[in-house]
Amino acid sequence: MPHVRIVLVEPIYEGNIGFSARVMKNFGFTDLVLINPCKIGNEAYARASHADDVLTHATTCSFHDVITSSHILIGTTGEISKSVCHSMRMPYFVPGEIRTMIEDIEGTVSILFGRENWGLNNEEIRQCDIICTIPTSSKYPIINLSHAIGIICYELAGICRGEYPLATREEMDHLYHHINEYLDLIGHPSFKRIMTMTLIRRILGRSKLTIREASTLHGLLRRSEWHIDPNLEKFNRTNDRLI
Amino acid sequence: MPHVRIVLVEPIYEGNIGFSARVMKNFGFTDLVLINPCKIGNEAYARASHADDVLTHATTCSFHDVITSSHILIGTTGEISKSVCHSMRMPYFVPGEIRTMIEDIEGTVSILFGRENWGLNNEEIRQCDIICTIPTSSKYPIINLSHAIGIICYELAGICRGEYPLATREEMDHLYHHINEYLDLIGHPSFKRIMTMTLIRRILGRSKLTIREASTLHGLLRRSEWHIDPNLEKFNRTNDRLI
Repeated sequence: MPHVRIVLVEPIYEGNIGFSARVMKNFGFTDLVLINPCKIGNEAYARASHADDVLTHATTCSFHDVITSSHILIGTTGEISKSVCHSMRMPYFVPGEIRTMIEDIEGTVSILFGRENWGLNNEEIRQCDIICTIPTSSKYPIINLSHAIGIICYELAGICRGEYPLATREEMDHLYHHINEYLDLIGHPSFKRIMTMTLIRRILGRSKLTIREASTLHGLLRRSEWHIDPNLEKFNRTNDRLI
Repeated sequence: MPHVRIVLVEPIYEGNIGFSARVMKNFGFTDLVLINPCKIGNEAYARASHADDVLTHATTCSFHDVITSSHILIGTTGEISKSVCHSMRMPYFVPGEIRTMIEDIEGTVSILFGRENWGLNNEEIRQCDIICTIPTSSKYPIINLSHAIGIICYELAGICRGEYPLATREEMDHLYHHINEYLDLIGHPSFKRIMTMTLIRRILGRSKLTIREASTLHGLLRRSEWHIDPNLEKFNRTNDRLI
């Protein structure tokens, strides 16, 4: 993945700068660049909350400095006319596409966000390599600056879902085996068995059990078994230890 | 897609309620439900901006009312311990997964967002069908309420990229044919031709030209041809008309 830099071009409201710093840090980004920003005071720091470090380390520079220090320049624009006539702002890409387009780049990718009231002007857009637009509702397409940054950062974060251990194939097979034995115990007819086990496999299979959930189901089966025949409990527990 | 309702459980800051209404409307959602909210005054309406209608039509009701009027209840939680011990909050799904999980549902899907300082409590979480978590950076996982809502709404919006007409296979073949003829005209050696044309096809192919861009490239080639031999221009234009 490239180094991602968020560039605010002439932001007007310090609250938005603070909120932008916060949501950047939420997704692991810390390189904030400001071009001719408004005054940054208490409100910006209040909105930044625990991302005050991002705000403190934000650098202020010129548009030209951003161009010369970036390998790729991505300009963000609001939803625009679908006409193909706006060749300067076309074609545009949605945030999920941008992710794929830049993931192989070794270098700095600067993502430019324009003024709250005006966006990026044509001259700024002209110098961008890629245009990105967040698809919005035509009924109210004007998205707040920090919300736009949040969505782009969310898409580019590359933070995978926190891993929690799913039951392995072996553990699931063990569970199905246990269920099958339990069906024997409660006299489930063998001619229906394959269909019933398939149904159970479908349900548990698509729910992607965690190890803990599989273990809980074993426990519930054992509890039932114990109520039917107290001697079985020990046997099953021994069996589990062998897995 | 189901009807999506955004439910704020005991929100503390009216600014967040307003911002949430705005970002909901940005992605086409308007059903906002508030459970025991703070006072909603000028600041909320200022933040809502042109989504004041969403705020005005927000309904206030009890947690029980939300449960009885929803087909599916989705609880959102902050990033939590990766331990499998929190069975109540496990397994959780990321916003992109939620989209797939609910897209076939005919009915009301209520998405619950907890208090800014505390989230949803265990009793509330227990009653949810699905748990959703936005993956965030461990360095600063606490995301602002309206940013979280923005990301969920963005993922669930189902607003496709505005379509702009890409050049068809036939139009691209016509362009490559034109380029090949142009290489003849400028004396490009035939023994290098296949390699050069492959290189050109790679470049133009991966850039996914719009119709307009393809047409502009034809125009640039014609302009070059005219400079080399003014008689060729008419021929090519006639050729174009036949396509």
